[in-house]
Amino acid sequence: MGGDEAPRMVIEGANIARRQYRQAHFLFFGDKAQIEPLLKEFPKLETISEIRHTDEMVVNEDKPSIALRQRRNSSMRLAINAVKDGEAQCVISAGNTGALMAMAKFVFKVLPGISRPAIAGYLPTLKEGRDTVLLDMGANIQCDANNLSEFAVLGAVYSKEVLGVNEPAIGLLNVGEEEMKGNEQVKEAATLLSEHKNLPGKFVGFVEGNDITSGAVDVTVTDGFTGNIALKSIEGSAKLVSTMLKRALKSSLLAKLGLIFMWPALMGLKKRMDPSRYNGGIFMGLRGICIKSHGGANNIGFASAIGVGADIALSDFNEKVARELEKLHEAQELEKIEDLSVEAV
Amino acid sequence: MGGDEAPRMVIEGANIARRQYRQAHFLFFGDKAQIEPLLKEFPKLETISEIRHTDEMVVNEDKPSIALRQRRNSSMRLAINAVKDGEAQCVISAGNTGALMAMAKFVFKVLPGISRPAIAGYLPTLKEGRDTVLLDMGANIQCDANNLSEFAVLGAVYSKEVLGVNEPAIGLLNVGEEEMKGNEQVKEAATLLSEHKNLPGKFVGFVEGNDITSGAVDVTVTDGFTGNIALKSIEGSAKLVSTMLKRALKSSLLAKLGLIFMWPALMGLKKRMDPSRYNGGIFMGLRGICIKSHGGANNIGFASAIGVGADIALSDFNEKVARELEKLHEAQELEKIEDLSVEAV
Repeated sequence: MGGDEAPRMVIEGANIARRQYRQAHFLFFGDKAQIEPLLKEFPKLETISEIRHTDEMVVNEDKPSIALRQRRNSSMRLAINAVKDGEAQCVISAGNTGALMAMAKFVFKVLPGISRPAIAGYLPTLKEGRDTVLLDMGANIQCDANNLSEFAVLGAVYSKEVLGVNEPAIGLLNVGEEEMKGNEQVKEAATLLSEHKNLPGKFVGFVEGNDITSGAVDVTVTDGFTGNIALKSIEGSAKLVSTMLKRALKSSLLAKLGLIFMWPALMGLKKRMDPSRYNGGIFMGLRGICIKSHGGANNIGFASAIGVGADIALSDFNEKVARELEKLHEAQELEKIEDLSVEAV
Repeated sequence: MGGDEAPRMVIEGANIARRQYRQAHFLFFGDKAQIEPLLKEFPKLETISEIRHTDEMVVNEDKPSIALRQRRNSSMRLAINAVKDGEAQCVISAGNTGALMAMAKFVFKVLPGISRPAIAGYLPTLKEGRDTVLLDMGANIQCDANNLSEFAVLGAVYSKEVLGVNEPAIGLLNVGEEEMKGNEQVKEAATLLSEHKNLPGKFVGFVEGNDITSGAVDVTVTDGFTGNIALKSIEGSAKLVSTMLKRALKSSLLAKLGLIFMWPALMGLKKRMDPSRYNGGIFMGLRGICIKSHGGANNIGFASAIGVGADIALSDFNEKVARELEKLHEAQELEKIEDLSVEAV
């Protein structure tokens, strides 16, 4: 069990998730001496849980390659194996992201039609009740046009299946909306996506950083370097504004008086904007379901991550992803054949 | 004159800036028939202003190369020429960014020791009263390690000279703080910056997206693709939180009552966080001073952009930049010579 406040927040998170997912069972991987007394605090959870003891763990400093080779009995690896073996339907971890991706990719293997798996997550937008999907959030530092077009398909399926959007609008993250802008990868990906008539959504072209949270699109596609930085920039900015607000509201006696009246409304807002609600990045494009929780998540955040995993496990998510990827690649093959025949004329 | 609300916001902005910069004079380039009646509204401004008439203008759809070749009598080009000819000390424009950069680079030429100019701007942080510099905000889609190390020097001089930070802390934007993370460019740039003992600031290593606004560093260095997206993600997120807040505060009668007490504090916050205060990206690394205002800026925003230009024009900014770049490249040359002698041994 990884994460800054593990194992307590993991157990408490499971106890929160238990109430929403009545048929859930839990396998906890880690140090039994630590987990058992915690589990005792939640008798209802205990009855649907099992502890799998291991002393070994992946640490944050482990390189993915080292973790993969040397941590074969770590809690992370054993949890992934349990999904592979059919003992569990999904694995949720707040540990080392690189190691988790390396292990999940190695054990689960990628879905047919996927060059590289990606991490997808969702964020609130200006459009009330309409969340937006962002990917890749950090699995692939460099991506080509082909990777990006696959991510568009992955993100659209996520938006449809998990967030319930009927026909997701898909945007490619760029430095401007004009066709001439951006690097070669995004320009080529835009061409690929425009040509694919069978997308599980509607490709709307380029979008900019501010469009992620404006609700302009349901899916924002980018490489893992830019996506990770955009996500964390959004988190940092939200923290800046809310901290400044807190300071302002405590700055004078008059403001403090107003705070009393405003308390319920502000608490509602806090709940709506709570980063915990948006915890749980899914590793998309793998044959098994693996959810990455934020390392700094609290129990509510970890419960959200469990919820994301459970929602996906309860749908036939990966079958749909595989089907849509097949369509994408068939269209691309057709395109190539047509190009060839033109050349042959 | 470009910008969504030009020419009115330009004239009004100049009138605001006039009060702070008592020795300023203004040259306005554009359609005299439009500018003259506006200027008449501000008699004090009129006495220190001159209109240079031209019918030609750069439009937002112009590619930089086309603007450079075909818009030789545009207001943008004539304004840049005026700085080159010593008639003005800086040019401020809210027009097409790509065209402005192409023209400014062509007319001013780059400073010795610079491979590519960059756009730098500043943002508020969690540390009260401590703003942070971000560059490149969009001039260079792709950057190598050398470009990034030059940007670090540019940003540090900006932080020292314009924001008054004594020894700026410089960070390289990445997807994690660990040395092994990121693309080749940032890893190599980190090595270059760690080896340079004579930086006009302190290189602290990698920082993440949330560190831009946390105040962890005074200068955040990145390529123009990532920088532009990070900047706009921050803007979008700030808008999301403030819009949600507005909705929450109007959601109930009780909240509205509280609003009355809180009004002064909230207005103070609004002023502090006003994007207008942070308007004005400087094109760094050129032999002339060119400031890009946000296209959607209002008069206060445009006045801020004028202020940035005036502050820089009043300092010996470019001389300092040139001196620091010389030190950087000398250190790199020395490094190469040492490497060679090691090989020769």
